[in-house]
Amino acid sequence: MIQQVQQYLEEHRARFEEDLCALLRYPSVSADPTCRDAIHQTACWLLRRLEGLGLSSELIPTEGSPLVYAESPPVEGAPCILVYGHYDVQPPDPLDEWRTPPFEPTVRDGNIYARGATDDKGQMLTHLHGAEAWLKTVGKLPVQLKFLLEGEEEVGSHSLNRYLGQASERLACDVIVISDTPQLGPDQPAITCGLRGIAYYELRLQGPAHDLHSGSFGGAVGNPINAAARLLAALIDDQGRIQLPGFYQDVQPLSASDREELARLPFEEARFRQQLAVDSLAGEAGYTTLERRWARPSFDVHGIVGGYQGEGGKTVLPSRAVAKFSFRLVPDQQPEAITAALQRFFEERCPPGIRLQLELLHGSTGFLLPREHPYLAAACRAVEAGFGRAPVLIREGGSIPIVSEFNRHLDVPCLLLGWGLDDDNMHAPNEKFSLAALHRGSQASACLWHELATMPSDDEGVSVAHA
Amino acid sequence: MIQQVQQYLEEHRARFEEDLCALLRYPSVSADPTCRDAIHQTACWLLRRLEGLGLSSELIPTEGSPLVYAESPPVEGAPCILVYGHYDVQPPDPLDEWRTPPFEPTVRDGNIYARGATDDKGQMLTHLHGAEAWLKTVGKLPVQLKFLLEGEEEVGSHSLNRYLGQASERLACDVIVISDTPQLGPDQPAITCGLRGIAYYELRLQGPAHDLHSGSFGGAVGNPINAAARLLAALIDDQGRIQLPGFYQDVQPLSASDREELARLPFEEARFRQQLAVDSLAGEAGYTTLERRWARPSFDVHGIVGGYQGEGGKTVLPSRAVAKFSFRLVPDQQPEAITAALQRFFEERCPPGIRLQLELLHGSTGFLLPREHPYLAAACRAVEAGFGRAPVLIREGGSIPIVSEFNRHLDVPCLLLGWGLDDDNMHAPNEKFSLAALHRGSQASACLWHELATMPSDDEGVSVAHA
Repeated sequence: MIQQVQQYLEEHRARFEEDLCALLRYPSVSADPTCRDAIHQTACWLLRRLEGLGLSSELIPTEGSPLVYAESPPVEGAPCILVYGHYDVQPPDPLDEWRTPPFEPTVRDGNIYARGATDDKGQMLTHLHGAEAWLKTVGKLPVQLKFLLEGEEEVGSHSLNRYLGQASERLACDVIVISDTPQLGPDQPAITCGLRGIAYYELRLQGPAHDLHSGSFGGAVGNPINAAARLLAALIDDQGRIQLPGFYQDVQPLSASDREELARLPFEEARFRQQLAVDSLAGEAGYTTLERRWARPSFDVHGIVGGYQGEGGKTVLPSRAVAKFSFRLVPDQQPEAITAALQRFFEERCPPGIRLQLELLHGSTGFLLPREHPYLAAACRAVEAGFGRAPVLIREGGSIPIVSEFNRHLDVPCLLLGWGLDDDNMHAPNEKFSLAALHRGSQASACLWHELATMPSDDEGVSVAHA
Repeated sequence: MIQQVQQYLEEHRARFEEDLCALLRYPSVSADPTCRDAIHQTACWLLRRLEGLGLSSELIPTEGSPLVYAESPPVEGAPCILVYGHYDVQPPDPLDEWRTPPFEPTVRDGNIYARGATDDKGQMLTHLHGAEAWLKTVGKLPVQLKFLLEGEEEVGSHSLNRYLGQASERLACDVIVISDTPQLGPDQPAITCGLRGIAYYELRLQGPAHDLHSGSFGGAVGNPINAAARLLAALIDDQGRIQLPGFYQDVQPLSASDREELARLPFEEARFRQQLAVDSLAGEAGYTTLERRWARPSFDVHGIVGGYQGEGGKTVLPSRAVAKFSFRLVPDQQPEAITAALQRFFEERCPPGIRLQLELLHGSTGFLLPREHPYLAAACRAVEAGFGRAPVLIREGGSIPIVSEFNRHLDVPCLLLGWGLDDDNMHAPNEKFSLAALHRGSQASACLWHELATMPSDDEGVSVAHA
């Protein structure tokens, strides 16, 4: 049965490539109000495509870009899978750095070049191909599929977030599948099993009402930049340990097997240093670079501004300073608890003559799919079937906001199966997607429905560890 | 004899006011290249005025504004006094905030309003009036006067600094008199006996070659803003004590009498706080506000910038951060020694993955005229005679660059006799100078020549403590 499906995918490669080209021609830039028509046309193209597969399909209007929803019938004894993707793209600027125009897809050296090729039109389509292959050969899917495709991912997913709050029954499923992440490298597929959370703050410090002459007043009046330096420096010691009381309380230590697995991944520190043009790396004492990036919390100031910015010197005692910073969190750490501790920490240390305001700009919890989760094993087999090589299990140090939202509303595991490559120029000129990845991803998708079909549905599975 | 001089000044008040108006009509804005003609005309006006007194006068051309120089003959057994002033003014912007045009001097409520009224044309002229009164009544001055008036004070005194380097023989004198500082308040004249020095730095910190995504890299790569906070915060403890090794080595403790004198000055801390709109003041533990402002070293960050500055959050791990900061110094502290200690301090503490560059943008030593200096006693008597009230001896927390330069090149004490008021709107719209201050200053000047005439010249006096 699966051989038939796989063969169908092989035979229709040319049409799948044409399909992707058709989809890439729409300039569906969600940040650009002049692209509203293109956004709508893209959604309609996807709707027709899903209808063409015989799925029950619908365009869900929102205040922003429409959501495209489609579902196949439930399959007795097999799980229900929600496939998420996004059809909007980043703006194509700077235009003059593109070798071929961003909305005229062009194949060169086995890659298709266009805005949205890898992020996320190409990766998203692989799951439509996987479904099509089943429907056109076997005549039905071995699992229930629900497709939920949005057009605002690049601008914050506001409409989808609202919809998630009201449609959790309709969207109920056993697992979510998203392909919007990279492979570890060419010919080395990867499944992303962990993401860090984040608690992102803005700290505003107010000293005197106006800037003062630092000669006449310096040494007698609180300086908000001095205060910012003091408060921020107090948050972390020179061993990279965050000093906020209780910060590590919910941090689960890395298991020996987690550490071994990370250590086995091909990662060349020398090359990494060279890439960043730094003499040495930095971070929490006692951890490797990959552990620091993916599996341990961190503290970074993202921006700071205050006082005189121009050339040369100006002897000003500034009235204000603003800093933006965040903690990256590991699963089980809660932004809310950190905010409360942080507020206390700053208030206790705020120097006289300085008023502080702390604002949580956004917070999300981390995500971790346990290595022993049966859905993960199924996904590994599917990816190996599609790519001819077993995937490695990796984590990512960043957050994927939509994963947090799915976590919050649907409370099911999430499989992050990425077909992209680090050099696909996501968000940059000359974005591309490998045609090999397109077809391997489609094969992996078709196999995934097959593999998941034998999995227990509902609460029989191991539940995902999400905070 | 002095009564005659004083009476002359009384009788010529109207003309002195007219003279000041004439001088204020020239828009001698040194920062504005379109004012070059006005600068030149102002210098010529002063030259004619000094020639009219019978002084040997000269316009000294420079690459910038001409210097105006004039001198009277030496007086056997009496000291030689160099009077410094500046005839250039700040730009008048913002023009629409002036009640009357900046270069149309207008008298309202006993004040003359115009750009340059107090800074420094009005204050400078008092010494020409003082000299005139002697020359027109007694027929000669009781001391030798050398006038040195420059036209680039508001843009850095570059030409004067160059000239000082080559004319120290011509400018040789026993004491320098400058009127370009404020009284303590209305009807409370003051002599500024101390200035702080400064060592002003720019610190540039470089992390990775480009901004990075803080999710993917945060915790594993050095962050230059984190580093800036750490390095700056390490420079001062929560008691306001600067932590640089050796920093206090050359700081002379305040004597009991110095502290008593400062404590006697009328200074209302509550009003000061209110004026700055701060709940509490800050600074080095164990010192009063005036001691902190005037007589103790301090550390202030003047500006800091790095990473994301816009609205909301951006999860960037920035590649660079720049901070500008200074130490205010007290006499005997040397910027050069501090720079060397600072470079070591930062290098020892610079986190891995961060390269630092430290640059001294400018440095100058502090200045202190000992309370027991006989010239100071003479100046006090002269100011009391002119203002009808004994001056208080104050210090100023800032630096006056030209005082440092005079110190360096001429190595004589400097009398800072200020006739201005804090609310004279120096460098702001509606600059003014009180007519009472104009005439009292002129009387004080005439009396100063009288008082100094009996002083020992050359090295017989107590030498000034300059570092």
